[in-house]
This record gives sequence, structure tokens and C-alpha cells, in this order.
Amino acid sequence: MIDKKENYDIAVVGATGAVGRRILATLDERNFPVGRLSALASVRSVGQMLPFRGRMIEVKELRENSFVGMDIALFSAGSSISKQYAPIAVKSGCVAIDNSSAWRMEKDIPLIVPEVNPSALGEKCEIIANPNCSTIQMVVALKPIHDRYRVRKVFVSTYQSVSGSGQKAIEELKHQSRNILNGKSVQKDIYPHQIAFNCLPHIDVFMENGYTKEEMKMVNETHKILGDSTIEVSPTAVRVPVFNSHSEAVSVETELPMNVDEVKDVFSSSPGISLVDNPENNEYPLAVDACGKGDVFVGRVRGGLKRDNIINFWVVSDNLLKGAAYNAVQIAELVLKRLGN
Amino acid sequence: MIDKKENYDIAVVGATGAVGRRILATLDERNFPVGRLSALASVRSVGQMLPFRGRMIEVKELRENSFVGMDIALFSAGSSISKQYAPIAVKSGCVAIDNSSAWRMEKDIPLIVPEVNPSALGEKCEIIANPNCSTIQMVVALKPIHDRYRVRKVFVSTYQSVSGSGQKAIEELKHQSRNILNGKSVQKDIYPHQIAFNCLPHIDVFMENGYTKEEMKMVNETHKILGDSTIEVSPTAVRVPVFNSHSEAVSVETELPMNVDEVKDVFSSSPGISLVDNPENNEYPLAVDACGKGDVFVGRVRGGLKRDNIINFWVVSDNLLKGAAYNAVQIAELVLKRLGN
Repeated sequence: MIDKKENYDIAVVGATGAVGRRILATLDERNFPVGRLSALASVRSVGQMLPFRGRMIEVKELRENSFVGMDIALFSAGSSISKQYAPIAVKSGCVAIDNSSAWRMEKDIPLIVPEVNPSALGEKCEIIANPNCSTIQMVVALKPIHDRYRVRKVFVSTYQSVSGSGQKAIEELKHQSRNILNGKSVQKDIYPHQIAFNCLPHIDVFMENGYTKEEMKMVNETHKILGDSTIEVSPTAVRVPVFNSHSEAVSVETELPMNVDEVKDVFSSSPGISLVDNPENNEYPLAVDACGKGDVFVGRVRGGLKRDNIINFWVVSDNLLKGAAYNAVQIAELVLKRLGN
Repeated sequence: MIDKKENYDIAVVGATGAVGRRILATLDERNFPVGRLSALASVRSVGQMLPFRGRMIEVKELRENSFVGMDIALFSAGSSISKQYAPIAVKSGCVAIDNSSAWRMEKDIPLIVPEVNPSALGEKCEIIANPNCSTIQMVVALKPIHDRYRVRKVFVSTYQSVSGSGQKAIEELKHQSRNILNGKSVQKDIYPHQIAFNCLPHIDVFMENGYTKEEMKMVNETHKILGDSTIEVSPTAVRVPVFNSHSEAVSVETELPMNVDEVKDVFSSSPGISLVDNPENNEYPLAVDACGKGDVFVGRVRGGLKRDNIINFWVVSDNLLKGAAYNAVQIAELVLKRLGN
């Protein structure tokens, strides 16, 4: 564990990526006590300049000695980089906060959503994993329901934006959309099928059991974060032609009976949740409204039609922020709190 | 009830609309025994010419005497027109097959999906209602599951295309998409929020209980069609930026245990269903593939992760065809079958 200081030296691995850039912006916006900031990336990005707190920072190559003297390393450069370099960062004395799936399900690695399971952080603070985007926004909403009514089953259908697949996916959606609007044929590169004006029930690879890896992440990570592997999660992960922010239709069955107004109160008084639920004014969470915000937006809250232990709702969040960069910086803040900052 | 004949005189009300045009095309494609064909619409469409079986048909104004001498009237011009004119058509001796929601939940009006509940047609054949698009494709998939395992709960999230809101909605999606791709602001006319590159958890008006009318149609029509109002349906109806064909993520809980391979066999041997479920080859139903086809496409079939009475799947169908025109023509065929044709 690192020592308490006034400012912390931060390494951002994968700094030039969409999540990396948002980590820099979030550190700034949340007034994180940053001392030195080291922007690391692969050799092809070396020399790029990234803005941070009014100055420009030169991107350096990620190397084994990149973490010497640093306090916190935030990883967002894919699983294989995290697998290789997070232990090196820890050996150099860093706390490594990892956005990839490399360490999430390892038994001794805490998987943290700060509003949900801060106490799972433990004492050591070596590698800390950041959950998958689609899991984070769901568990922020499930946690207060689980605490109060005990969640037994979750049925979730996702409406996931393309930004999670990277900048090339955003370009693919733009390019295909333009071509279709102009009556031309589309080119497929990132996704196996046309994503423009279409919905793909396929995110990440298929597993033996017929579920996708993305769907199984929502199952397994939810169990680990909520500390209850008896919760039955039935996920369908779907890519939709939206640039940024994920939406999710969630149905929850609980042990105890619920009252809709009470559930709305529970949501609106829970950390990290913003309740947007005024259907009479056409107000409900929308992907385009969530962009750039750190909250998880919940709305369309309604009870089961025949029983009082079912609740249905709609959850929207910026997958690059709360689903990645913002949650990672919140984890770093949690580490500082542990140090007494 | 009309008499058996070699050919039947058909009136299509709302002939110039998207569904009306597809009714004409479907009558042709399915070799329906059409005698005279009368294309009816409001006064502003009078004189338009519509193609049918290689000739052009002039659109005439819908009037009280429009149904004299006709055998079957297919309505697709909205609820108020159906409410007013379907009884007039019946009085004129027609069988009235109605695509609107005007008559669906009336106690004595049969609500028919030919593959699902043909016997509900009854003997009289006066007004026959066509269910809502999102209900039809779901019940086609639910029926064989219900027959074999008894459906107890249904959790469904829809991914509904804009074509169901009419031609102006298609233009709105195109126009907004172009503007966003060109960095311009969008204009909202048909939908209360931006539909391009966004998902709206809002179809039709909101009811007192927090559900939308579209969602309650999926509940009430499913009960009526499957003849079992004890089935608990939890729907979330969502408009997505897709031009045509609806997708649905469906989770079903049954009384009896299920086996995934058996369920796939049940689907593929059921009328009206085309099973597309080869994830290893990235094959699953897609909205863009379903367009122009009359089948309901089912895929992504997978069992509950912790219990054998849950099944999850993905259902796609052309909402203007099986969800409207095609189902209406199938109902007309059912009427003819009843006559002995």
C-alpha cells in the first residue's frame, strides 16, 4: 500500500484511447490531488500531446520501468497489457487500477464499484479491478434494491452503444449510416453485421453455453460485486446504433414485497443514482442525455402487474465514464480515503 | 358469414399507407383468390394509382356505401376509422379484418394470429381483430413453449423500428441522422426526443400504472390470444433507430422444466417460425434480414443459468408484414378455409 501524501504521482496506461482521455479529464474535473502525471501508451502513440489541467503532456512509451516512483497506475489498454504490466506496477510500489477484464474474476482481486462495495477494497490495495461497463450501471441500481428487498432474479436486456468498441466502431457506425442514407452498400469491419439502423444480439465472443462473454460478465461480476452468487441473472447483450452511453431494461424479482413509490425513493436517495422518472412530461433517461455525466440514470420504474416482488426499470449511463474512466478515478479516490485523505 | 366462391371481392381501407400497400402485395404473393379489388382511402388520396397484379388500381374515397357487394374488408387506417366503418362493412355483408387497436380487446371480437389461435375465429366471422405488431411476433414464439411447458412469466424488452409510426417517422430518422452526421441540430416532430442514434423507452402514451399503452397491449393481447390471463408479462417497449422490423429479447419462465435442444426443436417445427441460431457462424436473427419476409425469426436460444424452467431468446420479424399486413391476409385465408376453400 502507498503512503499518504499531499499529491500522488499518477500513471495512465492507454492514455491516448477514449477511456484514457476521459481518465485525464475526470482526474481534472474531480480535483484529484495529482502530482506528476505520466501518460503511457504503445510506441506508435509516443510523442502525441494530451491536454491535462491546462498544460500539454507528452505521451511516453509503456515500459517495465514506467512505474518507478509512481503511486497509482490506471490501466486502460486491454487485457494482455494489464495482465503483463499491472503486476510490474505493483512491484514498483503502485496501486494498479485496471479497466480490463484481465483480473476481475481472480479470487484475491477486489472488483469495485465505489457506491456498491467499497469495503471489498481490503487492506492491501495492489491490483484493483474495474468492472465491465454494462455491469457497473446495473449494479449501482441493483444494490439499494438488494439491500432492502433481497434480489433473487434479474432479467436484463442491454442497448449498448458502439463507443465501447473503440473509435473505429464509431467511425464504422458513421460511415455505414452515411452509405445507407445515400443508398450505397455498407462495409463491415468491426462488427460481423451491419450496425447502422440495425440491432446485433452479439457482444464479445460466444461461450459454450450459448451466452456471450459480455453476458457472462454481467452474471459473474454481479455475483462478485454484490457478494451473492445465488442471484439468478438472465442477460441479453445487444449492440445498438447509438454512439455513446448504454441503456438497459431491467426486471428484478425480490424476496420481499416492494412498493413502487418506495422503490423510487430508494433509488433517488442512493449514491450515484439520478432518478429521471416523469413520464407525464416525457422525462426518462436517454443515452444522448447521459453523455458526459458520471451518474447512473434510472427511470420508467414500475411494479409487476400481478405481484409486488417484481419491479421493472430503465438504466442509462455513459459507458466511457461511469462504465470505465469515472469509476476508475472513484476507485482511486477510495484508495486515498483509505489512506486518510 | 360470407358464402364460398371462386374469387372474393376485397376492399382495402387505408390502401395508400405502408401497411395498405403491403396488404396488396401480400394478397398477390400468396395468390389470394381476389375478384374485384377496391382500394379505399381518405379524400386526399383519391385518384392515386396503386399497383396490383400487374395492373394499376385507382384509389377511391372511403364512404358508407364502399362495402356494398364486397366480401372481405381489410382495415388499416387507424382506430377511429375502424371504429366507425368496420360495423358498416359488416352490415354490408363483409367480413372485416381490422389492423387497428379499436376492436382487439372487445369480448366478442376474435383476436387472431393464425398459427397461434385459429380456433378462436368462431363461426360468425364479422369483425376480426389483428393484434399489435410487437405482440404477434412474441406470441408466435410463446405458443409452442406454452403448449409444451406452460408459460408462467414473460420478461420482454423490445427494439422496435420506426416504420410502425408511419412514413413520416422514417423520414424523421433519416433527416435527424443526416443532420447529426453533419454536425447539425435535429428537429423533432413525430417523437418527443431525438430518435437518431438514441433509444426511447416510450411507445404510445403512458398509462396510470406507469406502463405505456404499447406495453399494456403486449400484456392484454397475449392473455387473450393464448387464452390464459394468469401469464405474468413484464414488458419494456423501446423505440430504436432502425427503419423496419422489430427485435425482442424474451425471457420465459415455465411450469415444466425445459431442455435447450428440445426447445430449439420445438421452435423449428412450429408454424411461422424460422430458427436462425448458429452463433458459431455469427448467425442469429437481425432486423435488416427480416425485412420483406413473413416469418418470425427466433435465435439466441439459451437456458437459464441456474434453473431449467427459464429460457432466453431473441425474436425478430417485419412489423409491417407478420406484424400487420401478412397476418391480416393470413386471417382472410383462415376465413376462406372455414368456408371450405
